[in-house]
Amino acid sequence: MNPSPVELIIAKRDGGTHAPAEIRAFIDAFVRGEVADYQMSAWLMATFLRGLDDVETVALTEAMLHSGDVLRLPSVELGKVDKHSTGGVGDKISICLAPLVAACGVAVPMISGRGLGHTGGTLDKLEAIPGYSVNIDAKKFERIVREVGVSMIGQTARLAPADKRIYALRDVTGTVECIPLIVASILSKKLAEGIDGLVLDVKVGRGAFMKDLASARALAKALVRVGTRAGKRVVALLTDMSVPIGTTIGNALETREAIEVLNDVGPPDTRELTLALGVEMLLLGGAAKRPAEARKRLERALADGSGLDVLARMVKAQGGDPRVVEDPSRLPRARHQVEVPAAAGGFVTATDALELGLTAVALGAGRTRADQQVDPAVGIELCAKPGTRVEKGQPLVRLHLSSKKNAAALAARAAAAFSVGKKPPASRPLVLERIAK
Amino acid sequence: MNPSPVELIIAKRDGGTHAPAEIRAFIDAFVRGEVADYQMSAWLMATFLRGLDDVETVALTEAMLHSGDVLRLPSVELGKVDKHSTGGVGDKISICLAPLVAACGVAVPMISGRGLGHTGGTLDKLEAIPGYSVNIDAKKFERIVREVGVSMIGQTARLAPADKRIYALRDVTGTVECIPLIVASILSKKLAEGIDGLVLDVKVGRGAFMKDLASARALAKALVRVGTRAGKRVVALLTDMSVPIGTTIGNALETREAIEVLNDVGPPDTRELTLALGVEMLLLGGAAKRPAEARKRLERALADGSGLDVLARMVKAQGGDPRVVEDPSRLPRARHQVEVPAAAGGFVTATDALELGLTAVALGAGRTRADQQVDPAVGIELCAKPGTRVEKGQPLVRLHLSSKKNAAALAARAAAAFSVGKKPPASRPLVLERIAK
Repeated sequence: MNPSPVELIIAKRDGGTHAPAEIRAFIDAFVRGEVADYQMSAWLMATFLRGLDDVETVALTEAMLHSGDVLRLPSVELGKVDKHSTGGVGDKISICLAPLVAACGVAVPMISGRGLGHTGGTLDKLEAIPGYSVNIDAKKFERIVREVGVSMIGQTARLAPADKRIYALRDVTGTVECIPLIVASILSKKLAEGIDGLVLDVKVGRGAFMKDLASARALAKALVRVGTRAGKRVVALLTDMSVPIGTTIGNALETREAIEVLNDVGPPDTRELTLALGVEMLLLGGAAKRPAEARKRLERALADGSGLDVLARMVKAQGGDPRVVEDPSRLPRARHQVEVPAAAGGFVTATDALELGLTAVALGAGRTRADQQVDPAVGIELCAKPGTRVEKGQPLVRLHLSSKKNAAALAARAAAAFSVGKKPPASRPLVLERIAK
Repeated sequence: MNPSPVELIIAKRDGGTHAPAEIRAFIDAFVRGEVADYQMSAWLMATFLRGLDDVETVALTEAMLHSGDVLRLPSVELGKVDKHSTGGVGDKISICLAPLVAACGVAVPMISGRGLGHTGGTLDKLEAIPGYSVNIDAKKFERIVREVGVSMIGQTARLAPADKRIYALRDVTGTVECIPLIVASILSKKLAEGIDGLVLDVKVGRGAFMKDLASARALAKALVRVGTRAGKRVVALLTDMSVPIGTTIGNALETREAIEVLNDVGPPDTRELTLALGVEMLLLGGAAKRPAEARKRLERALADGSGLDVLARMVKAQGGDPRVVEDPSRLPRARHQVEVPAAAGGFVTATDALELGLTAVALGAGRTRADQQVDPAVGIELCAKPGTRVEKGQPLVRLHLSSKKNAAALAARAAAAFSVGKKPPASRPLVLERIAK
């Protein structure tokens, strides 16, 4: 017989290990309303302080996964691989990566989230495309993945509802930064997509959830271990998030940059990160045997426009205006543009991703509460990045604003995110580590 | 500025120390409904695992104390001292102790609780007296304490309401057995009585909340330290609870035994524990300077019937039938009595207080849920205690039953609580330790 909720809480409080069936029963009872929120939050705090081992984390992941619908996509014959990022600033990678990978013969059924706090969300970026709908039912999602190779939609209420409720509790009870709980939350949603493999982009640095390499590595290893135990092929890359990715922050601006990448004219770091993650996806999806082969296929799909073509077809299939992909000037544009000049000449030594992310939120590009609306047009264009030489008066960033109110304060805030020095900074690798089973 | 609830939870989760003002603000916000139950329970679990120091525990005690009415009893000129027991089996001490101490010149404003689980409660025992009301308002309570020297009532909703709600949460979230939380819960209620001093009877052993001496000592020391810091004179006795106190378990039976003690014909252990606690109360209340002097006064009040007289006057003042004190046969009596004989002769070596307490609950003398009614008449009389020599067939206990249904199973359960051996057990001291500042 399974323990009562109080007995289970006490067992974890005292450092015990739960049997998988006990965790399943606890989560099921929570979903049925037989475990109260105050009991779940006590268990979450006990778990935060005592931990869960991998077997417990797999059990929690699968219990949350099976609290809702689990997609199977039986009609999709290709290997099915998704990518998940732990969240960053200027992270538009999904929008160029998923169509590119689909163009290379791997299906990408992707369920994404919205931005919160200083990090952006893929859904907000896609919705900058006029008409694009992220609310697609499971049947149509499967059809688009089958016919186009990729579909990018939003989480429905029927997907891992236990995770949704538990995450909301963690947010208000100081139990967010807990690796097994983070792992179960990420994987329960991703495993509901019906994928065979998952590539994780675990961000590290000022603009990331994990600020230091050690904790990011611990999270990446746990994700790979638990995901593998749950029967999926999982690889993680640790990637730098001290600097915003590419040259734009803000929804329409980032979608435009993703289109540029697919036109093979994107910023080098955005392109490079897309290729690095794409290589892993092609390998997991069985579309290539070796990294060099995978990279070549991806580069070809950038050069011949086949990735761009998949994006256009997906946008069309989801009700969006595909002409945007040909002509990104059709994306929403902010009324005002304000350049922020460098106060002194020299080399840019740092651009604080966290501060620029928060500035973009202040501009209206993001939200501080989940129920807020975003303005698709506003954002920040970076005219200089670490290593760039600037003269005094030359622009550091260009703000895209809906109104001139507060423009001076926002400009000052953006400028303060830049450090300019006499010598160029040491160059930082984009991919810090690769974690596989 | 005080931290938000989440910030406070995180601080304790990470092993931090709260400032007194932060704890006060948190409890006040909880009482106002601005801190949710699920946040309080996360904080309780973090506190369970990280602890509270004495300054934090004093702050929590005082915040819970001031969440409701705090009595002052300005018209009572005598020293005001109460006693609190952590709960035991057969613990009727308050009913003989409080009037006895009042008869010796110390006022006793006592707010008691009900039984739950295997432990009994003073209110249930007092209510065995026909007409006795435990629901007395603050004004009348003060008048009875002033005129009679003692009043024994129940907790009102206006007394330490924060404690009531927090205790209910602890009960269902696995956060009960936590010394600083226990200390704050006990002291917040006792300090609301307007006392100058408090004697704590911290029980140790099978029938107690604290099963071993080390944890009971830790609780007693924390109670004395925190109570003293909160400005009260506090002494604790650690007393044995491996064996039920005296010869009765059950409400009317225990009230009768308390009356016997005040008639100076009570069982030796009940009398001795009453005197030991009474000595401490007289010393704290300033009615005696030395233990020997205090003990002499108490013994005189037993011998001359003045303690009994105070009990009768208190019963009358609270609406009860004072003739019960003269003639305890007026107390409710159970319909059936069943003697449980010894299966073999020898010396009783142990009587399991926990098992006998649970048997009494099964008889109807106690409750397993707070909303249950008790039967005042039923209970257990012990005919033998550790050290008693019994012949085979001689009664070990006499069950007082409302019906003969289940009588055989209850008799077997009661008999199983006894161990009989060839040699008498080593005698155990009743008072194990005294803890003072």
